[in-house]
Amino acid sequence: MINSDYKKLESITLDPIQIKDLIWKHYVRLVKDVIIPYQWGILNDREDIEEPSHCISNFKIAAGEMKGEFQGAVFQDTDIAKWLEAVAYVLAGDRDEELERIADETIDLIGRAQEKDGYLNTYFTIKEPEQKWKNLKEGHELYTAGHMIEAAVAYYQTTGKDKFIKIVSKLADLISEKFGPLKGQCHGYPGHQEIELALVKLYRVTKNLKYLETAKYFIDQRGIGDNYFLQEEKKESYKQIFPDFHNYDVKYSQSHQPVREQQSAEGHAVRAVYMYSAMVDLAYEYNDKELLSACQNLWNNIVQKRMYITGGIGSSGILERFTTDYDLPNDSNYSESCASIGLALFGLRMAQITRDARYYDVVERALYNTVLSGIGMDGKSFFYVNPLEVWPDNCLERTSKEHIKARRQKWFGVACCPPNIARTLASLGQYIYGIDDSSLYVNLYISNQVTADLNGNRYQIEMESEFPKDGLIRFTIERIAGEQKEIKIAFRIVGEARDFQVFRCGKELESIKIEKGYMEIEDCFIKETITIKYNAKARFIRANPSVREDAGKVAVMKGPFVYCFEEVDNGTNLASIYIDTKQKPMERFESELMNGICVITCKGKKISKANWKEQELYASREVEFEDIELKAVPYYSWGNRKGGEMMVWMKEIL
Amino acid sequence: MINSDYKKLESITLDPIQIKDLIWKHYVRLVKDVIIPYQWGILNDREDIEEPSHCISNFKIAAGEMKGEFQGAVFQDTDIAKWLEAVAYVLAGDRDEELERIADETIDLIGRAQEKDGYLNTYFTIKEPEQKWKNLKEGHELYTAGHMIEAAVAYYQTTGKDKFIKIVSKLADLISEKFGPLKGQCHGYPGHQEIELALVKLYRVTKNLKYLETAKYFIDQRGIGDNYFLQEEKKESYKQIFPDFHNYDVKYSQSHQPVREQQSAEGHAVRAVYMYSAMVDLAYEYNDKELLSACQNLWNNIVQKRMYITGGIGSSGILERFTTDYDLPNDSNYSESCASIGLALFGLRMAQITRDARYYDVVERALYNTVLSGIGMDGKSFFYVNPLEVWPDNCLERTSKEHIKARRQKWFGVACCPPNIARTLASLGQYIYGIDDSSLYVNLYISNQVTADLNGNRYQIEMESEFPKDGLIRFTIERIAGEQKEIKIAFRIVGEARDFQVFRCGKELESIKIEKGYMEIEDCFIKETITIKYNAKARFIRANPSVREDAGKVAVMKGPFVYCFEEVDNGTNLASIYIDTKQKPMERFESELMNGICVITCKGKKISKANWKEQELYASREVEFEDIELKAVPYYSWGNRKGGEMMVWMKEIL
Repeated sequence: MINSDYKKLESITLDPIQIKDLIWKHYVRLVKDVIIPYQWGILNDREDIEEPSHCISNFKIAAGEMKGEFQGAVFQDTDIAKWLEAVAYVLAGDRDEELERIADETIDLIGRAQEKDGYLNTYFTIKEPEQKWKNLKEGHELYTAGHMIEAAVAYYQTTGKDKFIKIVSKLADLISEKFGPLKGQCHGYPGHQEIELALVKLYRVTKNLKYLETAKYFIDQRGIGDNYFLQEEKKESYKQIFPDFHNYDVKYSQSHQPVREQQSAEGHAVRAVYMYSAMVDLAYEYNDKELLSACQNLWNNIVQKRMYITGGIGSSGILERFTTDYDLPNDSNYSESCASIGLALFGLRMAQITRDARYYDVVERALYNTVLSGIGMDGKSFFYVNPLEVWPDNCLERTSKEHIKARRQKWFGVACCPPNIARTLASLGQYIYGIDDSSLYVNLYISNQVTADLNGNRYQIEMESEFPKDGLIRFTIERIAGEQKEIKIAFRIVGEARDFQVFRCGKELESIKIEKGYMEIEDCFIKETITIKYNAKARFIRANPSVREDAGKVAVMKGPFVYCFEEVDNGTNLASIYIDTKQKPMERFESELMNGICVITCKGKKISKANWKEQELYASREVEFEDIELKAVPYYSWGNRKGGEMMVWMKEIL
Repeated sequence: MINSDYKKLESITLDPIQIKDLIWKHYVRLVKDVIIPYQWGILNDREDIEEPSHCISNFKIAAGEMKGEFQGAVFQDTDIAKWLEAVAYVLAGDRDEELERIADETIDLIGRAQEKDGYLNTYFTIKEPEQKWKNLKEGHELYTAGHMIEAAVAYYQTTGKDKFIKIVSKLADLISEKFGPLKGQCHGYPGHQEIELALVKLYRVTKNLKYLETAKYFIDQRGIGDNYFLQEEKKESYKQIFPDFHNYDVKYSQSHQPVREQQSAEGHAVRAVYMYSAMVDLAYEYNDKELLSACQNLWNNIVQKRMYITGGIGSSGILERFTTDYDLPNDSNYSESCASIGLALFGLRMAQITRDARYYDVVERALYNTVLSGIGMDGKSFFYVNPLEVWPDNCLERTSKEHIKARRQKWFGVACCPPNIARTLASLGQYIYGIDDSSLYVNLYISNQVTADLNGNRYQIEMESEFPKDGLIRFTIERIAGEQKEIKIAFRIVGEARDFQVFRCGKELESIKIEKGYMEIEDCFIKETITIKYNAKARFIRANPSVREDAGKVAVMKGPFVYCFEEVDNGTNLASIYIDTKQKPMERFESELMNGICVITCKGKKISKANWKEQELYASREVEFEDIELKAVPYYSWGNRKGGEMMVWMKEIL
């Protein structure tokens, strides 16, 4: 390992974290109780979904244990990888012999499907053995390998079992041999980034520097000289995989420029943020200030100009891509669940390396809104795309709103999001705290209980957050083992709420040291009780006037939650409603509504149709209004009741 | 000919109409002076455009006079057909020996490219002789034949020469033999409608009933039983032409239902309105009330729920299609120039058969706005797509706004619109008047001079319209030959303007007989001078509140002209501007601006960016305004000066 100038924070290992939060507890439980069994059924083609997965069958065929053809997408193997990664995290908190047995057996199957040289990818093994590594642009071999590696690392970390890590190490050895700068090596890089951050993880558990070097090679090589993918297409050995994928735009895979020179987030959003995450990892490992500076530029471009208020990214439904600064259409955007997961991964890394709380404002935004909206309260329905405005009637096939679904779907042909959400929920704990030798950073106010080692001592930590209802946070920490040593506790100051009080053992602190958005409480010894009172009242938020789609509109937030207005509460034609922002929004906790949510109501007016004849499309008639009472629910919860219209940015009476 | 119950109006033959209108004169002149020579250069590959036409070359190759491969689209031949049709109309008003010689030579070339059996289509003759009639869905053979027939009919009508009509009659004979209900005949119909209305035209000049019967067959057969195109795809002989054209939706070509059962306008907008036009023709010829009723339903669905204020149709950029009721997005619509031409053709026929002026309100809307916006003031640049809102920065390739161009283009790979606009401008006269034995209907207030035969007499007619400036219309009619007989003159009452005065020979008429939107002036003898004073002051128009995209917005119109706001006059970020509709808009004629236009100014306010930091994307900051003076120009004229943003529907202070 190279010595880094950066004092990086680490996450607390997942095993001991128990999520007790009002909102999150339900979803985290769903992972084990519903999502993992449901997805296991899908992977084994036992669920009635439109496009069966075939995932387990493909591995059996590749292992020579079943006859048949490969079926599914070229990256179908990743479904099992992400499922195993989620299982690994679940096993951390809650050992379950039966689940572990199934996982072990699945890992064994994966091992048997691996080729002798380490190659592991059922699509190419079964269907296109001659095409291995010949279509990096579309083949997703390195992407799939990355997810396998991530799963194996997680499984090793939480179970201690090393069979899976040995399988993927063999694969990673093959990749490190195949790709690199030497003569005879392939000078390509993945069409869909993912392996880079996975190889860093594998390096961190195996300490095999070769993996880190390969990750660095992929990042450094990208966008250098003649574009690899455009050269690849011209080779005789090239065979197209996606027939409709013409006129490749190299920006799609962020290979239009050397990564260090990239100033704006371009192309496919998931590819982008997975790559940026790896870039932060490598900036740390190689003490690479230029690379970190590129990460900062790219981060700023996203969060200052190309991100939805929900933490969604990817403004275009076509190619799931970033578009241009301030282009944030609400009804035709992509904002893939996976892209927000990637944004959270990127932000987590940036926060860890810089110890700057502002990154967490965005991580929180993504997790509480777009990631959470990606999954239904039943754990069996998912959004791939997360619009901020839906009028179901015009979400038609073969239009530019074809990708917008007004209802969560049971599964998807390209099923990246559901297992990705599962692994994110199962590993939620990693986002809450950051630690170094002698400091504990509290990043997210999600109620939990955990033990952590700090400065050689063991501490019992408990956090009770009233975040969904109000801004009260009670935090206690107690040394349960070890000798007398002080530690520092740093609480992230929630981005919007500059208005707060802090109490240490019941006494309000008059002056608080603030460092990069964290309030630091030093000299903590045996036991501390810290209470923070944030002003978490509902508030109206506006977008920078350069965001044309939001001009004259207002969004409602409460704490980290973005709110939305649904047809079931507010009637149809939400576009014709104006909120009266002069009147304070009212809050009401409804314990029976969707597991308990805080509802926000406000006053408004709606354009009246009363004077219009149905057959009149245009007229010089003046606008008339009727008064209306409006009700908003958290964005993540939308679409869990009756279908219908939904809107985040509402018109405002000005 | 079957006796029809419908007393259909006819257009005045084009020869004698001289367009003298302030606005239209420029464009009509452009046809002869610029568009026809420019397009001739393109057809001969002498203009420097991105995708050369190859059109003339294809005919030479097909005629065996040149070596080479077919190049261009499968419907490339239609470019020459539409060009010849425009030439025919131009020759009507203004004989030009050199132009006529070129046209005659081109017709000769077309004749030599025709196969012995009458088949005429260079794509199939040169490239796919085995595939004739085997892919009606994509092949455009009948569509191309339709445009050839239309051109030939026009050329015959205006020059009296019959060579071209003989060529297309041979082709039509082949088609009438090939398609029909008999055993051994093909029971298909065109993938792109157009031939139906063309065959009716051919029947009307040749009196050959076979052509009318074939047109009727195509209409009657459509959408009956198992869909022809889906059956065709399954045949062994089927060969796909457009590789990306998968999962054919039969609505695309209006073949989802028998046409008489269709209640809403679906699918590709141009296909739809071309078909509806033919349906009106056939309803007249066959006295078919059921068919006319279907036309009325479809018309109402379009103009009451699916049409832009500019007369644009086709809300979706993808598949250039209708979507759903009230779905009228302004920044991503298609509104193809050809679709508005088709809507005008449909409306013209409906007005002629019903003698109801309301159809003309829409014809006028389409011609004055979307059709005219399709061509630049230079006559050498064209819009294919006619959005109502453009922010050039986000009209990016590979997004849902890819089809939106902020500048008119020199030409298009699929070049249907430019020659279609040319033939429409060249035949503008057909829209102005309708006649029967003893009545003259004045439909559009476009200044012109014409002689017309009515009730056996010859009349000299002159209309001077101040429409672009105000609502004054001076109309004179004088009998110049024939005996004493009275005629009726019916003036269309402009849809919006219920406020008008009429003067007959200087004396205001107190009571006016109004019949289906026409004011009728009877007993006109030797000479009449009619003056109409419309209130043509600028007015604010609002959309039905069900149009979500226009809620809280207002458009400005003056007479038939829809106005728009351009960045060059109003600065950037038009979405952040509110119009103060409490203050009257002001008008000012600027004779130097774009050949003379009436500019409209109004007061407003603009959301201020002053308090926002560039890096702030979302904040709870309140909205602040700055006052702004706004300037609007007619929609048709947009994009003729500096590029930039454009917007029709503006926010309104409410």
